[in-house]
This record gives sequence, C-alpha cells and structure tokens, in this order.
Amino acid sequence: MSEKEKNEATNEEVEPTETTEDIAEETVEELTPEELLQAKVEELEDQFLRARAEIANITNRNRNEREQLQKYRSQDLAKKLFPAMDNLERAMATEVSNEQGASLKKGVEMVLESLRHALKEEGIEEIKASGEAFDPNLHQAVQTIPAGDDVAADTIVEVLQKGYKLHDRVLRPAMVIVAQ
Amino acid sequence: MSEKEKNEATNEEVEPTETTEDIAEETVEELTPEELLQAKVEELEDQFLRARAEIANITNRNRNEREQLQKYRSQDLAKKLFPAMDNLERAMATEVSNEQGASLKKGVEMVLESLRHALKEEGIEEIKASGEAFDPNLHQAVQTIPAGDDVAADTIVEVLQKGYKLHDRVLRPAMVIVAQ
Repeated sequence: MSEKEKNEATNEEVEPTETTEDIAEETVEELTPEELLQAKVEELEDQFLRARAEIANITNRNRNEREQLQKYRSQDLAKKLFPAMDNLERAMATEVSNEQGASLKKGVEMVLESLRHALKEEGIEEIKASGEAFDPNLHQAVQTIPAGDDVAADTIVEVLQKGYKLHDRVLRPAMVIVAQ
Repeated sequence: MSEKEKNEATNEEVEPTETTEDIAEETVEELTPEELLQAKVEELEDQFLRARAEIANITNRNRNEREQLQKYRSQDLAKKLFPAMDNLERAMATEVSNEQGASLKKGVEMVLESLRHALKEEGIEEIKASGEAFDPNLHQAVQTIPAGDDVAADTIVEVLQKGYKLHDRVLRPAMVIVAQ
C-alpha cells in the first residue's frame, strides 16, 4: 500500500511515525479508521441520549411548574380581597335598629357569603384560630393575656383579623391574642 | 453479480468470508466499513440536531404556556366575584333615609371600591357599554327599543349588568338594551 492509500484509509488522522513492521502497519490500516468512526458513533450516541434525557427533564420540570402556577394562580387576587372581606365582616358586627339597616345588612351578609364561596372554590380557606393552640406558622400574636385556670398557655383567646391559606400556603396569618 | 457488487448493493454488512480477489477485498476493506460507520455518524448527527431543535421548541412552547397561565391566572376567581359586585352595586342604588343606613352604605361603597381596585390590579376592566356602539363580542343585547331622533340605531341605551374583560379576553359580556 502506498503512503497515499494509507492516508486515504485512515481518513482522519495520519499515523505520524513510519514503521517498517508489516503487521503493525496492517493493524493501523485495518482498524484505526473504523475505530475512529466507532468512537465518533459512540460519542454521538451518548450526546443523543443526553439530549433525550434533557427533553424528559424539561418536560417534567415544565409540567411541575404549570401545576404549581395552576395551584396557586388565585393567590394574588385573593390577597387583595381580604381587606374587603374584613370590612364586610366589620359591617356585619354593627347593630342595626330599623328595617332599612336590617335590609342592607342582609345584603352585606349575602355578598360576604358569595365571596367566601368563591374563595373556597379556589382552594382558599380560613385559618382555624379561635381556641386553637398558637402556631407561629399560621398565627401572628399581636397581644397576650395571662394564662389562668380558664385558659391554658399558648392558646388563642381572640382573633382580631382572620387569616387565610391556599392549600398548604399561608396567604395571610391570623392576627390573634394569645394566653401566656 | 461479483462479490464486490453484491456487497455494495446490500450496503449493510461486511462480507466476513475471505476472498482471493484482490480488488474486491481492497474495496471492502477500504470503503464499506467506513461508509457504514460514516452513514451511522451522519444519522446520529441528524438525530442529535433534531433533539436539540426539539429542546428549543419545548422551551419556547413552555415559556408561552407559562406566560398565558400567568396572564389569565385570575380569571376564574374574578368571574366568581362578579355576582358579589352586582349585589353591592344594587345595594348602592337603594335610597337610605337615616344615619345608620348612610353609614352602612358608605361601608358598602368602600368595599366595592376596594374590589374594583383589586380586579383592576389583576388586569380586569369594566367593559365600556353605556352610549357605545353595540358590539356582539363585548355586549349581550337582552332588550331593544326603537331608535329615534335622540338615539341612533345600534347604540346601547342602558346597561342592565356590567361586563368585564381580562386583557383581550371577555370574562362576562355586558347585558344591555340596544336601540334598533
């Protein structure tokens, strides 16, 4: 085989050292070009498998992100509704002495009920507070009273402002008075 | 068909048997295994490029989906608030004759204002209707009155229930009376 043929046969890298040993030269001629291509094939197969794995990962990650976005989608609007609900609840607490006031109050009650229903359908629930054990993850203590015979320590004795959560996420902690 | 031609024609597997024909043997040794591997390399390169393109497509598609989810995230909760707002607006329309009623009405007005503000912050706007040209994409005609000198045809003369839209999406059409 001429030098030219040998170069063509390797097709990628020319063996730099000359050898007089026939067997060694034949081994290079017979295996190296294939080996090089085989290595290239393996490298590409590996890259391709990594790309497939990346596609699977991206798809999973995106599904999770979409689920999270979907699950908590109402939180921003819901948070903005809480002050309105506080006001309606305060209005419900006022005493009325005539029919007109009673009628308006009845209307307020219906509105409050429909807001509560809307929030509930979106997964938003009131945080249990009154009479519960104080939990700093759910409740914010704004005042304390001494614990005694009638009320155990770390118990919530009064709720000043309702708290709300969306699934596992606290949107607003309940503001409470705690016995200590 | 010679052994060489046969091998080239099948173009898949290298003939494993030894042959005494010099030309055929050289052709098989020099070209066929490499050609096969080269074809494999090209196929894998193509697959890898397609996988990269798929990753780019998935990433873009998911970004768009996330943006859409984000953009319209408040629509479900918002839709459920409209009846409450209708009720509050109806309450605002009632006449009150004493201080207690006026005080409750003031409270209702504040609540209504805070709900409107919350919706606006989430991109939800009232659909313009009163005095506007009737648009079946935005308005739902529930009654018609004859058009005349004082009111042109296809003009909205009264809004029976407010409509709302979120960006370009109509969440609830306005229910209107149209001149015809």
